[in-house]
Amino acid sequence: MERPPLVEPGATLVPAAEVARRVAGLQATLAARDLDAAVLVQNADLYYFSGTVQQSYLYVPAAGEATLFVRRLAARARLESPLGAVVELAAPRDLPGLVAERYGALPRRVGLELDVLPVADFRRLEELLPETAFEDVGRDIVRLRAVKSPWEVERIRGAAAITLGVYELIPGLLREGITEAEFAGRVEAEARRLGHEGVIRMRGFNQEMFYGQLLSGVSGWASSYLDTPLAGTGLSAAIAQGVSFKPIRRGEPVVFDFVSTSQGYIADFTRIFVIGELPGELRRAYEAAVRIEAAVVAAARPGVTCRGLYETALAAADDQGLGEFFMGHGEGRVRFVGHGVGLELDELPVLAASDLELAVGMVFALEPKFVLPGLGAIGVEDTWVVTGAGLECLTPAPTQVREVA
Amino acid sequence: MERPPLVEPGATLVPAAEVARRVAGLQATLAARDLDAAVLVQNADLYYFSGTVQQSYLYVPAAGEATLFVRRLAARARLESPLGAVVELAAPRDLPGLVAERYGALPRRVGLELDVLPVADFRRLEELLPETAFEDVGRDIVRLRAVKSPWEVERIRGAAAITLGVYELIPGLLREGITEAEFAGRVEAEARRLGHEGVIRMRGFNQEMFYGQLLSGVSGWASSYLDTPLAGTGLSAAIAQGVSFKPIRRGEPVVFDFVSTSQGYIADFTRIFVIGELPGELRRAYEAAVRIEAAVVAAARPGVTCRGLYETALAAADDQGLGEFFMGHGEGRVRFVGHGVGLELDELPVLAASDLELAVGMVFALEPKFVLPGLGAIGVEDTWVVTGAGLECLTPAPTQVREVA
Repeated sequence: MERPPLVEPGATLVPAAEVARRVAGLQATLAARDLDAAVLVQNADLYYFSGTVQQSYLYVPAAGEATLFVRRLAARARLESPLGAVVELAAPRDLPGLVAERYGALPRRVGLELDVLPVADFRRLEELLPETAFEDVGRDIVRLRAVKSPWEVERIRGAAAITLGVYELIPGLLREGITEAEFAGRVEAEARRLGHEGVIRMRGFNQEMFYGQLLSGVSGWASSYLDTPLAGTGLSAAIAQGVSFKPIRRGEPVVFDFVSTSQGYIADFTRIFVIGELPGELRRAYEAAVRIEAAVVAAARPGVTCRGLYETALAAADDQGLGEFFMGHGEGRVRFVGHGVGLELDELPVLAASDLELAVGMVFALEPKFVLPGLGAIGVEDTWVVTGAGLECLTPAPTQVREVA
Repeated sequence: MERPPLVEPGATLVPAAEVARRVAGLQATLAARDLDAAVLVQNADLYYFSGTVQQSYLYVPAAGEATLFVRRLAARARLESPLGAVVELAAPRDLPGLVAERYGALPRRVGLELDVLPVADFRRLEELLPETAFEDVGRDIVRLRAVKSPWEVERIRGAAAITLGVYELIPGLLREGITEAEFAGRVEAEARRLGHEGVIRMRGFNQEMFYGQLLSGVSGWASSYLDTPLAGTGLSAAIAQGVSFKPIRRGEPVVFDFVSTSQGYIADFTRIFVIGELPGELRRAYEAAVRIEAAVVAAARPGVTCRGLYETALAAADDQGLGEFFMGHGEGRVRFVGHGVGLELDELPVLAASDLELAVGMVFALEPKFVLPGLGAIGVEDTWVVTGAGLECLTPAPTQVREVA
């Protein structure tokens, strides 16, 4: 029988060398923590360590070959994953037998993604492996994933290319009186045409994201449950973030805070558009944001702590008399100025009061922003990769406010 | 100081009577299970029982007033929630003290959403309440939420109105040679203009959904990790579902399987479009799907089991010689013909081998579909509410294949 077209013909699969290096990194962690194996199940982690997100258990022994046990869809997992061992799993209860058969014994100590695994799924694993002790390896995985390979950086550039393509089209889409919702739809349509994959993964429980935030004027003032400086009102209390039916007016800041995904990888980017001209107060705040970004970039290099960079940003905001409005206002304020991006939008490093040091290959979005009561939000954001020499921008675009006639 | 516009002016908030009735339903369950309280944290459940999704712990005692303890953003939670008790929570460690203060003592036995709560969050609650025993109330909540109030049914009609509005515009958007990705973007832009909220919630771990599936020809043949009969290839193995860059060709079935959200509520709907005409084999399969939908609708009424309806569908597919292709093909086949919709896309009732009986107010999507190897997918889907007399369609639209010149 003809095979179904399970993989998009133009799609780049994760190279075998990438997966081998990532699995080896995890195995070093397992060995150091005296764990016999890790059993991974979450989509982003599955993709990272196996090249496929099919419903499965990825069994990574501390030494030796990893095996992907697939419930649905094994045929697709075999096409997508460079792993040599992809085994069909009819039911979870078959897992212990298959593991014992392939590895000679059941593991005594196993690492799981306890930061994301629901309790009910955890208990099912406890029942399947009653003699096994389980430890959390979620934090270890997040730390491993924070450092990107050159192949991954190219994927993030691919996501950035969608964002930059859309950015160029905005002057043709923005017009006075269009609602945020309609404007967002037109912008998102361009992103889809260029290959935006839609789904934006976040690791944090209950955190949700839809393309980012396209907010005009006072909409930028609305904070929400999200761990972000801006959220918008959204169209209802149920979703409580994102665009509204507010019409976009002349002279308002239009925040284009856009998250693209390509081949699973994310780029995050913010620029400001305005129909006509921005009032002076907002223009000055924007210039302050650009200066803060430059100050953090100048200070960033391998070995610098996140705390140091966050404090650089806070001090620069204070110097410009805008500390009170930096990264949100009042209750809505957040305590960071940047966050890692990769397969998820909320990765390490977080540029906050953290002792984590920058390392070559880390990729993060740096987003100095101000929320000015009554006026809205303004700021700038780029995605940067840490190199031996400092930072390289993955979202190169002019930093001026873009004025649309 | 002026208040930020935290809630969209036109938004309908959840009425106090709705929340009171829902909380009372949960309290009856807690009492029946000898639980002193439930502590709820997941977005969809928070919205259902409190009217807001702000970062919080909703404390529902078995008797008495519920309290929403809010970490972020209390001001917004107060505007959105009809609950009388909305209390700021500076840090989770303050929760036990605040609970003891308000309720006189700490609870001995507490229900949690263990089906969705990550282990790490669960353990933090265990540390906060070391004397408390925790039980799962996730299943109870899902069962309570399966029966919709008339107010909720109106919200689902609101979501359906977006879908039906977009459906009418498709003949103007579909043209030969357009890629699935570009076509999807244009369709989604119309949905956004009409108020689609973007975020589509799913309860199942790792399950993800972006607007549904817009698939043409052989793309409908591609299954994936998703618990759905159709998935598409997607643009990469990372996302592994959804549209591709395949151009849409004359004579191919174009599956418009569209999920709308309005005020958090979901409607699910599928129709088939074609540029020109469908080949006879696909036309016959489509007519079979329409007949299966009619057979299930005719059999459905309060008290009928999901199993009975699923078997009705299976028997009808077999009668028409298409059993092998029903609800997917080969490894990609799924074992249901319908699923509840509400605040999440994967609610009860599931029309599968389940003894759950239909009850007045349940809302589900009924989606008889076929996957024909080499040809693609075809089928029909509507969202229905159970009434005393049977089913009422919430997505009324012609069932014919829509031919576009």
